[in-house]
Amino acid sequence: VHCGIKSERPDLALVVADGPVAAAGMFTQNKTRSAPVIQSEARLKSGRARAVVVNSGNSNAMTGRRGAEDALAMAEAAAAALGCPVEQILVASTGVIGRPLPIDKIRAGMPAAVAALGADGMAAANAIMTTDAFPKTAAVTIEAGDGLVTIGGIAKGAGMIHPNMATMIAVMTTDAAIEPPALRQALRAAVGASFNCISVDGDTSTSDTVIALASAASGTAPIQPGTPRFDTFVAGLTDVAQRLAKLIVKDGEGATRLIEVRIRGARNDAEARMAANAVMTSMLVKTMFYGSELNWGRVTAAAGRSGAEVDTDRMQLWIGEVGVVRDGVGVPATYRQAEALLKAEEIVMTLDLGLGQGAFTGWTNDLGESYVKINSGYLT
Amino acid sequence: VHCGIKSERPDLALVVADGPVAAAGMFTQNKTRSAPVIQSEARLKSGRARAVVVNSGNSNAMTGRRGAEDALAMAEAAAAALGCPVEQILVASTGVIGRPLPIDKIRAGMPAAVAALGADGMAAANAIMTTDAFPKTAAVTIEAGDGLVTIGGIAKGAGMIHPNMATMIAVMTTDAAIEPPALRQALRAAVGASFNCISVDGDTSTSDTVIALASAASGTAPIQPGTPRFDTFVAGLTDVAQRLAKLIVKDGEGATRLIEVRIRGARNDAEARMAANAVMTSMLVKTMFYGSELNWGRVTAAAGRSGAEVDTDRMQLWIGEVGVVRDGVGVPATYRQAEALLKAEEIVMTLDLGLGQGAFTGWTNDLGESYVKINSGYLT
Repeated sequence: VHCGIKSERPDLALVVADGPVAAAGMFTQNKTRSAPVIQSEARLKSGRARAVVVNSGNSNAMTGRRGAEDALAMAEAAAAALGCPVEQILVASTGVIGRPLPIDKIRAGMPAAVAALGADGMAAANAIMTTDAFPKTAAVTIEAGDGLVTIGGIAKGAGMIHPNMATMIAVMTTDAAIEPPALRQALRAAVGASFNCISVDGDTSTSDTVIALASAASGTAPIQPGTPRFDTFVAGLTDVAQRLAKLIVKDGEGATRLIEVRIRGARNDAEARMAANAVMTSMLVKTMFYGSELNWGRVTAAAGRSGAEVDTDRMQLWIGEVGVVRDGVGVPATYRQAEALLKAEEIVMTLDLGLGQGAFTGWTNDLGESYVKINSGYLT
Repeated sequence: VHCGIKSERPDLALVVADGPVAAAGMFTQNKTRSAPVIQSEARLKSGRARAVVVNSGNSNAMTGRRGAEDALAMAEAAAAALGCPVEQILVASTGVIGRPLPIDKIRAGMPAAVAALGADGMAAANAIMTTDAFPKTAAVTIEAGDGLVTIGGIAKGAGMIHPNMATMIAVMTTDAAIEPPALRQALRAAVGASFNCISVDGDTSTSDTVIALASAASGTAPIQPGTPRFDTFVAGLTDVAQRLAKLIVKDGEGATRLIEVRIRGARNDAEARMAANAVMTSMLVKTMFYGSELNWGRVTAAAGRSGAEVDTDRMQLWIGEVGVVRDGVGVPATYRQAEALLKAEEIVMTLDLGLGQGAFTGWTNDLGESYVKINSGYLT
């Protein structure tokens, strides 16, 4: 619903289970964490929650003691409207940093949010958007061995996006039966292969939050770690998380392309991640993709400054399946073909560092003028 | 002079001493170093050089074995034209990565470059420019205790600029008498407080090179490390280097402002540098400066993700002398005054992390649409 934090668009979302259910969360690693992040992380120690309340338009970060009070008041308002203990409420906020939360508007809007609850997540996906161009949802149904289990999710995020989460909030729900420790383990795996592999602008935020709720409503047996059913559940959760994560990159502020960056041939996976990180955040690489120009030296140079070891005489680079650098030297005969691929909306680029077996895959986007437009006039 | 690497503008520069003189250099830490970087670093082990030849328009990086041969051929051409051994020639190249150097054009242009030699460095400062909007020179004269010593320099650089040097080349010359080991020590100190403290876009390049030549032509006594005369010399060299470094930031691609970022209150200097680095490279911070918007949460959030420890309840932020964040909370009464300061061409921003005595000062610029325009159509 629209409660008035933003001038016109929806800004208050509720995701509610029928009762307290298994819950797990992962949060920003930024050291200036927002009040809702601190509060929700503490609440999740119990492993149970009934609802998540999310507002957009104000992140309630860098707001001091009043921020903590407002985050609590937001949870209390949701608890009162839902008729449940405040301990069962998780909160998340996203938007401008450093402004007091208009808590009275949130309080006043809560009954309407409860009245609007339904089975469709699209309204909630809309209400958590900030600079997002489109709402982000994904869902899969998996065979849990003794019946079907559904995993769904909503997410927001378009800027301040970087590995170790971003200005992004995602809520994933499932009717699987799974105890909190197992749900935590599954969530950690899914986030590690999705939200922690994307970059829009290299900035992580004060507010990044991923929450998973598991209701057991499917009636299937509890999913235990170390079983094939657990692996299937993790794969399903990862699938939903990856689809949401890629939607965030695709919706990156000012972006026109989604680029999958595959690093191969690193000394180890950690160095592959370092190289990918440098390539995915390089403004020179990102503007190159925006212009569809094959200025591949920017890619190799970004890897070269990443801290990862490289063998310049054995580096290889492919755009899609087209090899443009072989043994550290460009292959001009292939440039035209590669440049044609750079005009696509989705691009796969593979860089081999020429050393070992280390590998990493991440997703980034291009950098256009409108990123600057959006972010130089954000407050107004 | 113009030798034809670029279509019209000057692209070949020579800096020549009357004979072999004390020489020192510092080079990129990028692991995909260019052929000229590798060659010049090896040459400088002797501590002596007579000339530096620099071309713009092509960085001779990621060019394999041919690149090494071309870098040598470039030095040989300069040696032949100057009538000195090739061992006395240092080379540097800047421009597009991954294209063979048009060595025939450089060979053909060398006699004209020698013929154009003069006492004024402006022509050389012009010929080393790539995307630079203006040539960069600086000079100081210092009292060496027994007479005057002059230190001058030229530099280029506007993009791929980041701590640990950048796509930048600087040549500094002095008539001081100073032995190579002392010159190296002085250069390391000067670069550490200048070129290694600036950031335009977070990318370091394959080609970054700073070279200092000391001719002893002043007739003053040799400058020895550990003496007040050495400190005076280092201060002078640092002054020239800082002025050149700030000119590079000011000329940052698409930049309209020069921002001095002062970090205070870090646990130690290393963490202060980490925080400054995150703030100086944050696209969200840089677009904020472009738009003259006081979205200060981007600054504190960048520090928060930098890896440096912060005390959110004690963070302070000043724009100029105006405190906008006190004890981790915004001070709205000061915002209007601070926003007015954000419209200036030169801005000082001080962030106190609220912990210890660690401090660092660096320089960055803002990020405007034209950065994207320049870098998405660089090759064409």
